[in-house]
Amino acid sequence: MDFPKKMKEKIVEIVKKTMKIGKDDPRKIWHAFKVGLALTLISLFYYYRPLYDGFGQSAIWAVLTVVVVFEFTAGATLCKCLNRGFATLTAGALGVGAKYFADLFGKEGEPIVLGILVFTLGALGTFTRFFPHMKRRYDYGILIFVLTFSMVTVSGYRVDKILELAHQRLSTILIGAATCMIVSLIVCPVWAGEDLHKLIYTHLEKLANFLEGFGNEYFINSENDEIVKPSNEGFLGAYKTVLNSKATEEALANFAWWEPGHGSFRLRHPWKQYLKIGVLARECACHLQALSGYFNSKPQVPSEFQKEIEEACTKMCIESSKVLKELAFSIKTMTQPSSSAAEIHLCHSKTAVDDFKSILTTTETLLISNKLDLLEIFPAITVASVLIDVINCVEKISESVEDLSVQAHFKKAKNEEFSSSSPEKPPQQQHQLLHRGIVKPVVDVDDAGGSDFVAIEICGGGEASAGKAEVNPVVVKN
Amino acid sequence: MDFPKKMKEKIVEIVKKTMKIGKDDPRKIWHAFKVGLALTLISLFYYYRPLYDGFGQSAIWAVLTVVVVFEFTAGATLCKCLNRGFATLTAGALGVGAKYFADLFGKEGEPIVLGILVFTLGALGTFTRFFPHMKRRYDYGILIFVLTFSMVTVSGYRVDKILELAHQRLSTILIGAATCMIVSLIVCPVWAGEDLHKLIYTHLEKLANFLEGFGNEYFINSENDEIVKPSNEGFLGAYKTVLNSKATEEALANFAWWEPGHGSFRLRHPWKQYLKIGVLARECACHLQALSGYFNSKPQVPSEFQKEIEEACTKMCIESSKVLKELAFSIKTMTQPSSSAAEIHLCHSKTAVDDFKSILTTTETLLISNKLDLLEIFPAITVASVLIDVINCVEKISESVEDLSVQAHFKKAKNEEFSSSSPEKPPQQQHQLLHRGIVKPVVDVDDAGGSDFVAIEICGGGEASAGKAEVNPVVVKN
Repeated sequence: MDFPKKMKEKIVEIVKKTMKIGKDDPRKIWHAFKVGLALTLISLFYYYRPLYDGFGQSAIWAVLTVVVVFEFTAGATLCKCLNRGFATLTAGALGVGAKYFADLFGKEGEPIVLGILVFTLGALGTFTRFFPHMKRRYDYGILIFVLTFSMVTVSGYRVDKILELAHQRLSTILIGAATCMIVSLIVCPVWAGEDLHKLIYTHLEKLANFLEGFGNEYFINSENDEIVKPSNEGFLGAYKTVLNSKATEEALANFAWWEPGHGSFRLRHPWKQYLKIGVLARECACHLQALSGYFNSKPQVPSEFQKEIEEACTKMCIESSKVLKELAFSIKTMTQPSSSAAEIHLCHSKTAVDDFKSILTTTETLLISNKLDLLEIFPAITVASVLIDVINCVEKISESVEDLSVQAHFKKAKNEEFSSSSPEKPPQQQHQLLHRGIVKPVVDVDDAGGSDFVAIEICGGGEASAGKAEVNPVVVKN
Repeated sequence: MDFPKKMKEKIVEIVKKTMKIGKDDPRKIWHAFKVGLALTLISLFYYYRPLYDGFGQSAIWAVLTVVVVFEFTAGATLCKCLNRGFATLTAGALGVGAKYFADLFGKEGEPIVLGILVFTLGALGTFTRFFPHMKRRYDYGILIFVLTFSMVTVSGYRVDKILELAHQRLSTILIGAATCMIVSLIVCPVWAGEDLHKLIYTHLEKLANFLEGFGNEYFINSENDEIVKPSNEGFLGAYKTVLNSKATEEALANFAWWEPGHGSFRLRHPWKQYLKIGVLARECACHLQALSGYFNSKPQVPSEFQKEIEEACTKMCIESSKVLKELAFSIKTMTQPSSSAAEIHLCHSKTAVDDFKSILTTTETLLISNKLDLLEIFPAITVASVLIDVINCVEKISESVEDLSVQAHFKKAKNEEFSSSSPEKPPQQQHQLLHRGIVKPVVDVDDAGGSDFVAIEICGGGEASAGKAEVNPVVVKN
């Protein structure tokens, strides 16, 4: 009775899912279209008499190649095509050689020799696939090598015109592979490299959004709870995709290695550097996971101490979020971050850390006067300490992005273009000095007594740090 | 000149790598052997006249199937075999139908109709592979479906005896798939399920080892630094493999789904529950990453406060490490953890948390008397707070393992067998009560005034908690 209704519901559901996939990434629809196109093109070999006469039944290998080899990204398709082409070529030659070699052993000995050869090469080839380096780049090639060698030697036992057969198959496979490559590269190409590039800066943006949301809500909404609640979900979940992206990133980087230069990417773009940024982004996401745990168990009524450190902690969040946004923007537009606003924000966030530490010192007096107890301020201290870890992590990301900008020859941006949020622009040279060596100038005065003043001078443009300049010397007493 | 020498070095290097892979996992050598065996068996179709007469040239499809379908784990092989078998069957039938349908349009219309059909099915099939559910289980099946349909319809245009051809190919493919399945399941089978099982408890062990090592070194070696240094590397790096294991775990769980019952695993073993434990283990590894950061920036000279909390923090580490070890042991031996020692250790670690909190309270007096400053105790407080997070995470893991033990019908262990480290064994019923509801009995006295005494009684057997029983009431004042 209910069958037609259920059927209808199921169909509606599938259509909805399809719409969603198509909407999220229209390239997937294009990809399906491209595979259909390549298949139809290749089947012309069968329909069109002159072409068929040239290849005969072997033309079916072209169809097989297209279906098996056509992947979503251009890099993956190229990887499979080139692997398949070279493997077929070498294994075919080796197989023909093996067949003639086995012939020497007479009609009795031939199958035994062939059997031993197939067993040996099959086992060796299979084992080679376990080597990590081979697995990464040539896995498919080895598979096809074993396949072709076995097929040529085994079928060579019965087929006499083995050379002709091998030649026909090789050419059809090459034609199939070439068709795939051409369609994949020409019709609306999907570049693995571009995807990796986009993935990395999107991840940085997600981390930035989390920090921004956290900074705006953890400390501030404790007073006016109902206003900001609705926006919770958005930023709290996004970092999770960053945490588990290792496999995707590595696959994309492997495929990108095969791609020719395209758009702003040269042939040997430093894809490995993207992986390094990815590792750091995951490390940062780890800290955010801890933060999101504290967010959920946040005390309803903020303690005195929490109100005390609110400004410093919010600033740590917001400034490190701005750093990440600047870095993401710099990767996105492929402009050099060294002269960008990222460092100013990094500097501000470090000032906020110092502010926080100075508050810790003054808090002692509150503790002494019994207005606070240590157990009560414990959660807030923990959050702040994770935030300090985040800032350290963001600094590493910043250095890594700078390395990328050097390796990938990012263009120098005009000052007006890149600086999306910060108005101050101190001289670039001073800045680089700060970034490389004297990164925590205010905290460690032990080695260089004057360096803290340099730092305060540079960061002085910020709204909060100037006022705190008198407090800093108090902090540095250990 | 140097060529022979370099060649020799290269060969030695490869041999060493091979030895290493073989030593790390001898099943890989077995796998290579199995592929060779299956290939040799299947090539008998060619060498042995009566068999060849039955199948002719189509026998080559059996060779192709073996090479393409044989995977390392039994689950992956079964998945590919069954997918390939069913897909070939349905697509073959559909292809023959399409060929007869296209025949209706005459010699002119046939290639056009065939072309449209191939394009449509190729594009639709390719798009279907983007649905996550299909991708997970039937990705290979869809590929083979498109492949077979295209090959049958396209070659049907030229070949007249299409039914015979389809029948021959189907049977050879089935024979190839059957050979793979038999060899894969009989000769030294590699079960994906067993691997997943092993992976999960190894991960728990790695986390436990880190915590143990951290507990022994972070707090204690600050005094006698040179003695314990050498063992650093071992435990500090191991958690990293846990962090990035999501893809591996999910792949194994997918393959395990296809496997028949084997060893202690039934056909529908709750593999998904393993994934849940895996997620929690990664969460825990995230915290350990933070800890390892603090380990590297540990102050050379331990502060007064650090000495103060040393005992409590070390106990947190050691006890939570023991919990994880017990849980790993319980998964390993497939015995129920509910009556195991894991809970006792969990309880001890919670007591240690309370101890730490009570120390925090007493520290205030030190702060007041100016013997400490807050900035100095900041790193130690942070470490302790991460440890508390770790313990919360360990508790979630413990619950998850308990769920697994119920779903997978873990056997009840005799008391003597399982308890590898703890001598105390309180009545099981009381324990379950403690585990379910009143998990933090000492901290929250607000709701039930008497519950803390119950908890102290249960945990009282431990060596440290008994002495601290008087301190606890002091803690609970918020």
